[in-house]
Amino acid sequence: MALYRRMAVIGCGLIGSSFLRAAKAAGAADHYVAHDRSVEVRERVRALGLVDTVTDTAQEAVKDCDLVVLATAPAAIGAVAGQIASALAPGATVTDVGSAKQAVSDAFGAVLPDTVFPIPGHPIAGTEQSGPDAGFAELFNERWAILCPVSRKDAPYLAAVDRLSRLWESFGSQVELMDAHHHDLVLAVTSHLPHLIAYNIVGTAADLEEVTESEVMKFSAGGFRDFTRIAASDPVMWRDVFILNKDAVLEVLGRFTEDLQALSRAIRWGEADKLEALFTRTRAIRKGIVAAGQDAPEPNFGRNRKG
Amino acid sequence: MALYRRMAVIGCGLIGSSFLRAAKAAGAADHYVAHDRSVEVRERVRALGLVDTVTDTAQEAVKDCDLVVLATAPAAIGAVAGQIASALAPGATVTDVGSAKQAVSDAFGAVLPDTVFPIPGHPIAGTEQSGPDAGFAELFNERWAILCPVSRKDAPYLAAVDRLSRLWESFGSQVELMDAHHHDLVLAVTSHLPHLIAYNIVGTAADLEEVTESEVMKFSAGGFRDFTRIAASDPVMWRDVFILNKDAVLEVLGRFTEDLQALSRAIRWGEADKLEALFTRTRAIRKGIVAAGQDAPEPNFGRNRKG
Repeated sequence: MALYRRMAVIGCGLIGSSFLRAAKAAGAADHYVAHDRSVEVRERVRALGLVDTVTDTAQEAVKDCDLVVLATAPAAIGAVAGQIASALAPGATVTDVGSAKQAVSDAFGAVLPDTVFPIPGHPIAGTEQSGPDAGFAELFNERWAILCPVSRKDAPYLAAVDRLSRLWESFGSQVELMDAHHHDLVLAVTSHLPHLIAYNIVGTAADLEEVTESEVMKFSAGGFRDFTRIAASDPVMWRDVFILNKDAVLEVLGRFTEDLQALSRAIRWGEADKLEALFTRTRAIRKGIVAAGQDAPEPNFGRNRKG
Repeated sequence: MALYRRMAVIGCGLIGSSFLRAAKAAGAADHYVAHDRSVEVRERVRALGLVDTVTDTAQEAVKDCDLVVLATAPAAIGAVAGQIASALAPGATVTDVGSAKQAVSDAFGAVLPDTVFPIPGHPIAGTEQSGPDAGFAELFNERWAILCPVSRKDAPYLAAVDRLSRLWESFGSQVELMDAHHHDLVLAVTSHLPHLIAYNIVGTAADLEEVTESEVMKFSAGGFRDFTRIAASDPVMWRDVFILNKDAVLEVLGRFTEDLQALSRAIRWGEADKLEALFTRTRAIRKGIVAAGQDAPEPNFGRNRKG
């Protein structure tokens, strides 16, 4: 028997369309509904045959659904939750897939009726591609899916969390339950700061007068190339993430900048021992990641690479 | 006929031992000599059968050689050049493989006799591994090799540059001739700054009190993981590179920090348009790199990855 009777996905970009593909591959629902605010995307979703029903509004999409997944741009999640609130069926689970969770948790708390189960979520998966054509069913396979349940301990709510966990597991994901605030801090370090730094360094390189853009590209194998891949991620999504997770991002960014200034000073004064000590320490952390088996490539990175 | 009669490589780590393997695979010399200051490394080079002769001193190694390759830690290149200067045969080419070229060019100019041909060099290739066992013949295949000829225009010198270029080409490398100062600036952007940033972010993450190291590792797929790979590079080599290329590194680091502060301010004040504009621009640069075919993985990255 399918985990859900009727599932709606609002927002059919890379993540939303991958979610639909994964759900269909797992036979997770009896009926699939999708909505996207873009007419073009709705047409692509129809042409790709991703769902049974494509609706023109978000409210129509969620009607009678027992699972509603908000996969819009992060900044729109709160507003869409407000739009659909009155149309939700009692007992529906409402989740999302965005990278900042406290803001979503707050928005859900503010606008959703008590009759539904709000469970903010975040799969640690993605590629540098966007749009419904970029999605694929295996995107979440062998990746973490973090769920951030709200502070409700009633049995129906816990059962809803359990059901949603099983859905992610049917995609091949490993589920981790986490407090929304802690999620935002962990992701600020492991994802948001790396993206910010990557965007920044690519911008700095492009602005140099003495080094041409073609030279930067030509010799990018020395380390820069890895940053350009990260800095090619969806601009709108990341704009939203930094603004929604502002506090945690600025906190870790402040520490990063402080550390970088100390490093800069060590270089200026030729403090070789200090540099070597830091570099030896970071190497040990890498060994921990490789040993823990966390070194699998992003699913589509292999595809984009030649050779 | 072999390109060189007798080739000596001083320093048999990842790059030196790969150079020897590539040279032998290409049949580039009639006789191969190696020296490393470490007794253990010399024994490994003997055991691996990498050369015809392993010597106990650098001076012995270079005797009667027409090609001498300094593949020691970057900071030692100048000192080793001084050691071998009096033992070099007239007409020998002396090159190196370090990441900072102006310092090497200056050292060569200061200590080498006029009878030899100094040609600082730098292959844009490497892995996160170190030592003679980590080397492999294909390391330089389809990678750039930058040569930074000194300001000599006599025919024998130009012929020596040409011969060394052909050697790198026989390894599958593409050769680029570049002024040493310009090399240092280009590499400061494309390689040294990325490494510095990666070392720094991994250090910052490890120091956070509220996020455990195991959480950082667990959720590193969100972007952080790519940094840890770069931050696992040889600590001694990178310590030397930052100190030897101090001026260019501090120059680009200063610009990077300035840009990062502007970005930080845009996040604090919620300047969504400014963020989106930068992120859209960096995405375009990535497309240029992919289109230019500069997106091949580091040779050993594939090996270290599961799946």
